[in-house]
Amino acid sequence: MTTLRLTVEYDGTEFCGFQWQPEVRTIAGVLEWALGRLSGESVKVTGAGRTDSGVHATGQVVSMTAERAFPPDRLLVAVNANLPPDCAARAAAEVEPGFSARFAAVERTYVYAILNHPARRPLLGRYAWHVARPLDLDAMRDAAAPLVGTHDFRSFATLEPGQPSTRTVRRLDVARRGELLRIEIAADGFLHHMVRTIVGTLAECGTGRRSPGEVPAVLGACERAAAGSTAPAHGLYLAGVRYPDGYDSFAEPPLFGHLDARGLSR
Amino acid sequence: MTTLRLTVEYDGTEFCGFQWQPEVRTIAGVLEWALGRLSGESVKVTGAGRTDSGVHATGQVVSMTAERAFPPDRLLVAVNANLPPDCAARAAAEVEPGFSARFAAVERTYVYAILNHPARRPLLGRYAWHVARPLDLDAMRDAAAPLVGTHDFRSFATLEPGQPSTRTVRRLDVARRGELLRIEIAADGFLHHMVRTIVGTLAECGTGRRSPGEVPAVLGACERAAAGSTAPAHGLYLAGVRYPDGYDSFAEPPLFGHLDARGLSR
Repeated sequence: MTTLRLTVEYDGTEFCGFQWQPEVRTIAGVLEWALGRLSGESVKVTGAGRTDSGVHATGQVVSMTAERAFPPDRLLVAVNANLPPDCAARAAAEVEPGFSARFAAVERTYVYAILNHPARRPLLGRYAWHVARPLDLDAMRDAAAPLVGTHDFRSFATLEPGQPSTRTVRRLDVARRGELLRIEIAADGFLHHMVRTIVGTLAECGTGRRSPGEVPAVLGACERAAAGSTAPAHGLYLAGVRYPDGYDSFAEPPLFGHLDARGLSR
Repeated sequence: MTTLRLTVEYDGTEFCGFQWQPEVRTIAGVLEWALGRLSGESVKVTGAGRTDSGVHATGQVVSMTAERAFPPDRLLVAVNANLPPDCAARAAAEVEPGFSARFAAVERTYVYAILNHPARRPLLGRYAWHVARPLDLDAMRDAAAPLVGTHDFRSFATLEPGQPSTRTVRRLDVARRGELLRIEIAADGFLHHMVRTIVGTLAECGTGRRSPGEVPAVLGACERAAAGSTAPAHGLYLAGVRYPDGYDSFAEPPLFGHLDARGLSR
């Protein structure tokens, strides 16, 4: 028995999300097909984040257990040869038996990209949310501040009845890079649609449609109707996942450049 | 009569190049359709660079003449509403009658992107040439140096018989940005396949397959067989065009980031 941890990048545009579903194209589906072809066994993968349809990843982490031992170096080349152009493994390592990419994760980081310019950019059409009206960075930062910390994020999520909804947001940064806005949010875990609803609410504060001073009341309301709209999936990236052994899969989304990548300065 | 200069960005992946051709999707074709719809007349566009199938642009410039006067500000919004997601105008200005985006251009700048890493990146699959073997930056710079200046570039081009082939390369820079290589080349004009053949030849010097010392002899041979292979179209961007009135359409391709964009420091 071998347990592997794979770091995976994908362009989510043509996937129906991470989780396996019958008859549609999913990340888990193409990974299980590729890994199953190599090992000759039926393989199940577990992902650190169950990204929705259209959401991208630069640092998704998945775990799998197989009967056969794979040498991780050869595995990387072999698995990529069996994956489609829009999904690839970037790193592979053998880990202790029983490791779960989902349950062992201690922090997840998402990056959200907004193109804030009157004219759209075709080269970013699949990779950033286009907001034509000017966004006020200070207002968005004021709106972001009260969300950091441990709170019930029910207002910012699409939940099943009775689902626990307290999470700890460790970082929520809004930065401007030319005509792009980069929002980075790190937490112990995220509720369904949580990042996109936070981004949608921050954008409403940025355009002046909503006041940043309302955010504590939105949080306190504990109902989805209190928050802003859900920002589109195609601006969102699962950028990194941290584990207790120190492994951090963080990789900057390509549109934010390389010289200044957080990964290089850490 | 009004003559307009439009700056255009496109994702070349799903276009059969710039030039109008019957029954296939081209940049000139979608621009002429959109502009014709607005003006109610049949419109012809002239592009500064006739990019090939799969080549992208961040700073392509086109000119057109119409009977009706368009207010350039409204035109930008109106033309973009009639263009597909993978092509958009980024700037519009009225210019003197008879202006040709092609013949008035004094300098064109192309940027070429190479992902130089053992594992491919799905988010760059459409936007950078993946070279898995390590590229030696110093060797590539040594190979680039003799190409700067005024030369007969016949060895680096696919030419019609008798076509003039002397061009002046003003700049040819090779830089590493994390796992990406960025090659920038500026000249008064380019021959067909010239940038891609130069990049293919530099890459062969970078992997050690060819010595940088051979480049002067390749240039002197004046035959295509002397140079290296033609690098793929999808790593290439027409990034900017300069005009005698000082207008410069340069825009950094998104994958090289924004903080350090040349456009901001100029």
